[in-house]
Amino acid sequence: MIVILKKDPDQRQLDSLKAWLKAKGIDVHESTGIHQTILGLIGDTTTIDINLLNALEIVEDVKRVQEPYKKCNRKFHPEDTVIKVGDTQVGGGTLTMIAGPCAVESEEQIVSIAKLVKASGATMLRGGAFKPRTSPYSFQGMREEGIRLLEIAKAETGLPIVTEIMDASQLDCFENVDVIQVGARNMQNFELLKVLGKTDKPILLKRGLANNYQEFLMSAEYIMAGGNEKVILCERGIRTFETYTRNTLDIALVPSMKQLSHLPVIIDPSHAAGKYALVPSLSYAAVAAGADGLIIEVHCDPEHALSDGPQSLKPKLYDEVAAKCRSIHAVVNGGAV
Amino acid sequence: MIVILKKDPDQRQLDSLKAWLKAKGIDVHESTGIHQTILGLIGDTTTIDINLLNALEIVEDVKRVQEPYKKCNRKFHPEDTVIKVGDTQVGGGTLTMIAGPCAVESEEQIVSIAKLVKASGATMLRGGAFKPRTSPYSFQGMREEGIRLLEIAKAETGLPIVTEIMDASQLDCFENVDVIQVGARNMQNFELLKVLGKTDKPILLKRGLANNYQEFLMSAEYIMAGGNEKVILCERGIRTFETYTRNTLDIALVPSMKQLSHLPVIIDPSHAAGKYALVPSLSYAAVAAGADGLIIEVHCDPEHALSDGPQSLKPKLYDEVAAKCRSIHAVVNGGAV
Amino acid sequence: MIVILKKDPDQRQLDSLKAWLKAKGIDVHESTGIHQTILGLIGDTTTIDINLLNALEIVEDVKRVQEPYKKCNRKFHPEDTVIKVGDTQVGGGTLTMIAGPCAVESEEQIVSIAKLVKASGATMLRGGAFKPRTSPYSFQGMREEGIRLLEIAKAETGLPIVTEIMDASQLDCFENVDVIQVGARNMQNFELLKVLGKTDKPILLKRGLANNYQEFLMSAEYIMAGGNEKVILCERGIRTFETYTRNTLDIALVPSMKQLSHLPVIIDPSHAAGKYALVPSLSYAAVAAGADGLIIEVHCDPEHALSDGPQSLKPKLYDEVAAKCRSIHAVVNGGAV
Amino acid sequence: MIVILKKDPDQRQLDSLKAWLKAKGIDVHESTGIHQTILGLIGDTTTIDINLLNALEIVEDVKRVQEPYKKCNRKFHPEDTVIKVGDTQVGGGTLTMIAGPCAVESEEQIVSIAKLVKASGATMLRGGAFKPRTSPYSFQGMREEGIRLLEIAKAETGLPIVTEIMDASQLDCFENVDVIQVGARNMQNFELLKVLGKTDKPILLKRGLANNYQEFLMSAEYIMAGGNEKVILCERGIRTFETYTRNTLDIALVPSMKQLSHLPVIIDPSHAAGKYALVPSLSYAAVAAGADGLIIEVHCDPEHALSDGPQSLKPKLYDEVAAKCRSIHAVVNGGAV
Repeated sequence: MIVILKKDPDQRQLDSLKAWLKAKGIDVHESTGIHQTILGLIGDTTTIDINLLNALEIVEDVKRVQEPYKKCNRKFHPEDTVIKVGDTQVGGGTLTMIAGPCAVESEEQIVSIAKLVKASGATMLRGGAFKPRTSPYSFQGMREEGIRLLEIAKAETGLPIVTEIMDASQLDCFENVDVIQVGARNMQNFELLKVLGKTDKPILLKRGLANNYQEFLMSAEYIMAGGNEKVILCERGIRTFETYTRNTLDIALVPSMKQLSHLPVIIDPSHAAGKYALVPSLSYAAVAAGADGLIIEVHCDPEHALSDGPQSLKPKLYDEVAAKCRSIHAVVNGGAV
Repeated sequence: MIVILKKDPDQRQLDSLKAWLKAKGIDVHESTGIHQTILGLIGDTTTIDINLLNALEIVEDVKRVQEPYKKCNRKFHPEDTVIKVGDTQVGGGTLTMIAGPCAVESEEQIVSIAKLVKASGATMLRGGAFKPRTSPYSFQGMREEGIRLLEIAKAETGLPIVTEIMDASQLDCFENVDVIQVGARNMQNFELLKVLGKTDKPILLKRGLANNYQEFLMSAEYIMAGGNEKVILCERGIRTFETYTRNTLDIALVPSMKQLSHLPVIIDPSHAAGKYALVPSLSYAAVAAGADGLIIEVHCDPEHALSDGPQSLKPKLYDEVAAKCRSIHAVVNGGAV
Repeated sequence: MIVILKKDPDQRQLDSLKAWLKAKGIDVHESTGIHQTILGLIGDTTTIDINLLNALEIVEDVKRVQEPYKKCNRKFHPEDTVIKVGDTQVGGGTLTMIAGPCAVESEEQIVSIAKLVKASGATMLRGGAFKPRTSPYSFQGMREEGIRLLEIAKAETGLPIVTEIMDASQLDCFENVDVIQVGARNMQNFELLKVLGKTDKPILLKRGLANNYQEFLMSAEYIMAGGNEKVILCERGIRTFETYTRNTLDIALVPSMKQLSHLPVIIDPSHAAGKYALVPSLSYAAVAAGADGLIIEVHCDPEHALSDGPQSLKPKLYDEVAAKCRSIHAVVNGGAV
Repeated sequence: MIVILKKDPDQRQLDSLKAWLKAKGIDVHESTGIHQTILGLIGDTTTIDINLLNALEIVEDVKRVQEPYKKCNRKFHPEDTVIKVGDTQVGGGTLTMIAGPCAVESEEQIVSIAKLVKASGATMLRGGAFKPRTSPYSFQGMREEGIRLLEIAKAETGLPIVTEIMDASQLDCFENVDVIQVGARNMQNFELLKVLGKTDKPILLKRGLANNYQEFLMSAEYIMAGGNEKVILCERGIRTFETYTRNTLDIALVPSMKQLSHLPVIIDPSHAAGKYALVPSLSYAAVAAGADGLIIEVHCDPEHALSDGPQSLKPKLYDEVAAKCRSIHAVVNGGAV
């Protein structure tokens, strides 16, 4: 951590600051120039409050040099984390394919989609039971009943299930859930993260709409600090000025996270795009960029929801996309196609 | 709501869509041009899922015309809401001055600050007990004990107290709290909003770091839809590309909210600026723009926190700022100074 | 275009608005609901000033339905545009590989890099002569002399050259330049765009740091409206809250532009990432997403710039990246690897 | 400047870097910790290219400590700059009131508005002659003829005139213009800034839509480095996710610029708001925050533009706003009302 002092700082306050830092086990290196003095703080600065230092009268600016996260930091854990889920795994060279509807609507719906995506090579089933909705007047999901239906689909297909938790009070329902998802809006719901850190379930943590990499990793750190190291990072698009797409997929997060952390990275092209026709291209890009897997919405069938028309072709498109993703994965990883 | 159709839409799908809308009580006006056809939906569209329509194959785009919020909408409630808190009120021409430390640290600290800010004209006391922190390794607040100390300060000064809740499970501690604050990161913690909608406490709802006005009002609507109409909107700065200030105070939110809603609006210049020296100017700007009040951090004294030095002069600066705010409030509202 | 009126609009003003629209050849469809009245404007609304309508007292909001661009709009020009450059082309299934240093520094430097990238399959040479720099104290490029050196490299290798123009007054120097680049900061330098619209050179137009798709296409439209239809769209990353990468590559721009426009799309992973180690992954992602090509900085060799050390291995890395890009391109386009 | 090295850096590269820095007159202070080594660079680092350092293999990160601007930096020029314009001035305690239409449309229009705003206390007249428009199909302004009409209005009222330049080739038209405006989209049109640095006219420099304070000041520095120190900073709103307002007025820029620079600061509430009804509140906020003046659009009369109706009351509203601004200015600056 670097502390840049104002010109001609009050000596008594400076001494007080240095004594306080030394008492915390930090070595202080002072560099004095004509226009300013810089303090280089060497040691474990994760517990130093950057806002506290910034608020001091003698301080002009504070810059963090060392990452404030440890458990998810590749520097302290060079090997990739591989997370076992049922008979499959996330990370370690496997291309994880999670697929399913945006929301669970009925037993017939979730079981039939589960069978279709399994046939296309999906390795896990997703489906929303507790649904975060911007409007209190929108459908809030089937909740406990939705999870029961996911369990039926799991029993019928053998696919592990992934579904979202919205509040710690819902945790009892998740006993048979294989991977617990934390939504983008809850990425900094710290009380929820603490509770999940006490479980032993894999957590699929979605990046917040306007959060940066460091904040994302600090939220992973919250879960890991509680004892649960099974965290899967998931990029689902960030908010930008573009409105043609619902969000903007930050594809550079994939190689960046591979540098910063040892945790596996999954991409959600469906929420990023918000338009079905863009999902194939984003899926190919994600695999080419080195993602460990994809979570794709299949058959949130709008025509079906409105009328009682025939099943759409969407599972057929998923089948094509999944196949091409496997081909790209092979090329990127140096194997034959 | 406006639905823009793709060129030459499938007639069967279009009929199905129109029938579905009519069944929901919506009148459909069709305007056909050379390049496109537009459907104007007239009626109560708050329950129509815009994403569902957007996902239809025949639909090119959907634009919402009517606001999706009702209870906080000035169109349906033209008079300003005034919220009683103890012997004071928020809204209705009163300049609400909430002040206090960022975090409660000790009985001596909170009581002494409470007395000082009361002497400067503050009408409520703030202080953090449950503290949302980006890092799991940072101080998480005094929690229940912090609220007990706030209650002591309230007993000593008569000032109503405002403090933040982070999870519905903490609600029991808030029995003697006068105004419950929902932090920016929890603005879309919908399960928490639903629980607060069942209480009868005033809720100070902070705008999320990257949320727009409509999302902000939809979160107020969540609380009001539960039956609790005592919502105070609070702008505390949004995230932008500027890093000199911690956040960017969106001063236009004040007159905009006065157009869109009847709820009172409070400005938090401390979190917006992140630098003490900027707080006075932002406070004056907020009052001049028509805000109903300010929530200001007083004496989060960094020198004090490091050493055991003398009390800083910061409460003295608060005293000056509060006085000038009252003068500007008088000029803006047409009174004499 | 949709005009949403305020409740109970002044009838005289409404009649005046409708008469004015009709005089412009616009059909007006009126839909009246309980809470509001909507005017659907059918016809060519590209010349209607949306701000003018928005400012009318009787108008609550205006929403554009039809895109305001024509010449670059796929709706009016369904076939992909293919642009010939020397012996090669941009678009039409070709994978365009533009490579070269950030800035031209000497004849020896540019000629040697040109030969290396040609050997790795590059189809055009890039190099900055006029350099936009944030600071007036930074090196501003070799300017005219830099272009002369690019011409030498072109003569030696046969590679067409791509370089940036910063002001219309520099146009005379660009006579032998094959593709003129417009930088991100000049995307809305409308006077420059008009001048380029009068030339017959292909223009590589970079997207501005905070501009959306529509603004990007409107800038292409400026060039095309002048008569020059040879516009190549280039995404080089947008500004977001993330600072680990210099910019954020908006990979969804590729399939989105393929929907909206017929112009070819090139990705610049170097400026997007700002870190060499991220460029390979972003390059693979871009090709997988369907980009028509890449513009990559090769051998802006920092060690070389500081000392007089041996040539770095960076052209060797480019060679590997280019080969893998061709393999991914083949898979995505359905060919054999 | 701080250079953070990767763990175990190559010693030969490190020596080469240190030698290069010393040759540039920079003192290098090395602080070695367990996990990393930090170099503190003390001296004039304005000419060091931060991207060059960042690209070195041994470097993990570079952080600038000293501001890269000098001539506009308050540290090196503690007194406020005051700029004479005709018989008035900008800065130095004067409340500069610039007013006029968005675009010059006719002699009758500009002269009549000039007289009205002068009667309300305006100190300068604004009016657009060269108009930057997103669409090539929109009205591009009266150009040279518009400036001639502004000169007539100046002759009739004595008000100095402020109008925008879009390209260096237009400079000859600006001989009788008192203040040359650079629009937000041209804030980083460096070739234009260089040309304006060679003139002796005051320049009203608008902040770009997505530019930060440092970039804004670096653009001012471009002009000042050329010899023209008469730069007026103008905030006109930045782009954020909010669309209710056209842009988001960053009110904290006012006190921030007063800390960072000695240049005067003007606020443009009209472009920031995009809605007339919000302009009064934003104007009051700007004056309360300490702005040196306001540039307000008066009577861009939409009803007038459509029909040939009577003059709107808008100049009357300007009159009220201007009067209240003067009252707030007096209160904020400690004077009597």
